[in-house]
Amino acid sequence: MDRFHAIIPAGGVGSRLWPLSRQDAPKFLHDLTGSGKSLLRDTWDRLLPLTGPGRIMVVTGRAHRAAVEEHLPALEDHNIVLEADPRDSTVAICLAAAILERREPGVIVGSFAADHLIGRLDLFEKAIREAVQVADAGFIATVGIKPTEPAVGFGYIREGARLHIEGAPSARAVDSFVEKPDLDTAKEYVRSGRFLWNASMFISRADLLLAELERNRPQLLEQIQELAAAWDDPARRGPAVDRIWPKLEKVAIDYAIAEPAAGDGRMAVVPGLFDWDDVGDFASLAKVNSGGRKTDLAILGEHARVLSDAASGIVVSQSNRVISLIGVKDIVVVDTPDALLVTTTEHAQRVKAVVDALKLTGSSNVL
Amino acid sequence: MDRFHAIIPAGGVGSRLWPLSRQDAPKFLHDLTGSGKSLLRDTWDRLLPLTGPGRIMVVTGRAHRAAVEEHLPALEDHNIVLEADPRDSTVAICLAAAILERREPGVIVGSFAADHLIGRLDLFEKAIREAVQVADAGFIATVGIKPTEPAVGFGYIREGARLHIEGAPSARAVDSFVEKPDLDTAKEYVRSGRFLWNASMFISRADLLLAELERNRPQLLEQIQELAAAWDDPARRGPAVDRIWPKLEKVAIDYAIAEPAAGDGRMAVVPGLFDWDDVGDFASLAKVNSGGRKTDLAILGEHARVLSDAASGIVVSQSNRVISLIGVKDIVVVDTPDALLVTTTEHAQRVKAVVDALKLTGSSNVL
Repeated sequence: MDRFHAIIPAGGVGSRLWPLSRQDAPKFLHDLTGSGKSLLRDTWDRLLPLTGPGRIMVVTGRAHRAAVEEHLPALEDHNIVLEADPRDSTVAICLAAAILERREPGVIVGSFAADHLIGRLDLFEKAIREAVQVADAGFIATVGIKPTEPAVGFGYIREGARLHIEGAPSARAVDSFVEKPDLDTAKEYVRSGRFLWNASMFISRADLLLAELERNRPQLLEQIQELAAAWDDPARRGPAVDRIWPKLEKVAIDYAIAEPAAGDGRMAVVPGLFDWDDVGDFASLAKVNSGGRKTDLAILGEHARVLSDAASGIVVSQSNRVISLIGVKDIVVVDTPDALLVTTTEHAQRVKAVVDALKLTGSSNVL
Repeated sequence: MDRFHAIIPAGGVGSRLWPLSRQDAPKFLHDLTGSGKSLLRDTWDRLLPLTGPGRIMVVTGRAHRAAVEEHLPALEDHNIVLEADPRDSTVAICLAAAILERREPGVIVGSFAADHLIGRLDLFEKAIREAVQVADAGFIATVGIKPTEPAVGFGYIREGARLHIEGAPSARAVDSFVEKPDLDTAKEYVRSGRFLWNASMFISRADLLLAELERNRPQLLEQIQELAAAWDDPARRGPAVDRIWPKLEKVAIDYAIAEPAAGDGRMAVVPGLFDWDDVGDFASLAKVNSGGRKTDLAILGEHARVLSDAASGIVVSQSNRVISLIGVKDIVVVDTPDALLVTTTEHAQRVKAVVDALKLTGSSNVL
């Protein structure tokens, strides 16, 4: 564990949570449970016992630097990696891994989304400790979440054979990653007992992670290594970024590394028994804020003034207005100073389409 | 017609149109069709050809004086009757009638709600001219609207025998007034061809209207006559109001005059073939703003910025916010700077209950 570093890519806006999430107020900066802490800070706090404050690296956009530093006052200066512009998860994670490997050869890195919700931290810690053992044994490890329902909003991991790694009794090979299924398929997955939710956690020796990238995207690795070599030299970093960054391929780490590695038998999975949700849309936000009950209206917002006979759904109140709901079911109302969203939990996935439409219609100022 | 005066009681807030209608922005001051004119101004404009500007009297609350004068610049000073506080329609209409009768004995008065929508003004004028003939013949006349559908939101008038009054060929006795029916009853009413919608228009000789009140509420008439006697004397009006106003009974003119008069055969009705709606709730507002089609989302608001896939319902935009609707049907969204309402056209009648609840919960500042 003393070689273990955490990487938090804090990039995604969370378009499906618009108008709560915005370009300048991305999902990871929000408190989505009324806990008083942002998702980013939650992520930091749960990694701290595993790493200590000096071994958590955050990769984020230049625009979010001040906010990230405010949410994470203990984040060390040299552990904040600022992206010139977003280049997807492969660049974010592999650049961080390459920088850490140069600073401290032989590190094990784990990447953790900045905007997921996790409960039962004892079980989270246990799973990560196992995953670090699996990484030390030469695998790229992931933690797959034991499904609690046939969710159609998540990708799944199909478990393969047991691996018999010391200190990681529950580790198995990854047979394959599968895309978000339809409901019938999801039910089959859950019934079979062989599928886990893909929570996008990757734990690996940094050198092996980069070697895997080299196999699949040799040019991208070369560019990332060039950036990493210049990163800690103030005179060289700027010119290197200016020269290389615009050429970096945007590709998700799932495609560039995890799926090919699984195909070649180099990917392992540790089942996670903790509570997990990616809070991907307002239906999910409603669920996590009503304690899993479907018969409560969830209300989010410090000064919410809601008068409602609705027995389900969610109200997010960011303005100070009185909000009245009458005779609406499974409703989603998101009330912000400059934009209002009204939809239902059933249609929550379609919010992203509105964001796209607003871009087209010249209303980017509310995005 | 040269003895005809119009009275416009402009009092009701229109609670079922909250949060658009408010104590300080009652329904009659709103433009509910995007015409650019308030309902009050529309009412004035449609009466003008029948009366001229000097013979329209407006009865309203003290708080609305400035707004009424702004909307009706041609309203003469002595024709605005300010209520100390609201005392329902009998006081509003009979006080105006008593004041007018003292100024010009033998007047015929017609009272017209300040907040209804009327189309086909040629037919409106025709009906009122007939009603004035009926009033001259000694009846209390009303204009009943020929139903276009089995509406359950309106009261109905049951027609009696034809009256054979010169200049009013379509006038009939009123058999009875009936309350808002259920759907089956409403269908029967429409099928029978003997029922008209009650649009709360009353046309009568002022002296006969007051005589009818005397029969049913002698004390109230006496109080009203005392007020009227003092009204045009600046020295006497204030003290009379202070003394009498708090004791005035609140009672609708339908109960205090129209129903008893119908029972005694002194009430007549002229059928109105014009378009009419009392715009009583947001379902009605949606209907009148979608041209009667049920497959259009009506949008009301000068600077409305609405992005929606909803094919029915209504959005009222009074803030400058972007409003997005996804996957909601028959929706009602009323977006004002300090209050938001989300309901459906089916539940539109229940908005009044929210207003009552807000009073109880100490949120009167948004009422």
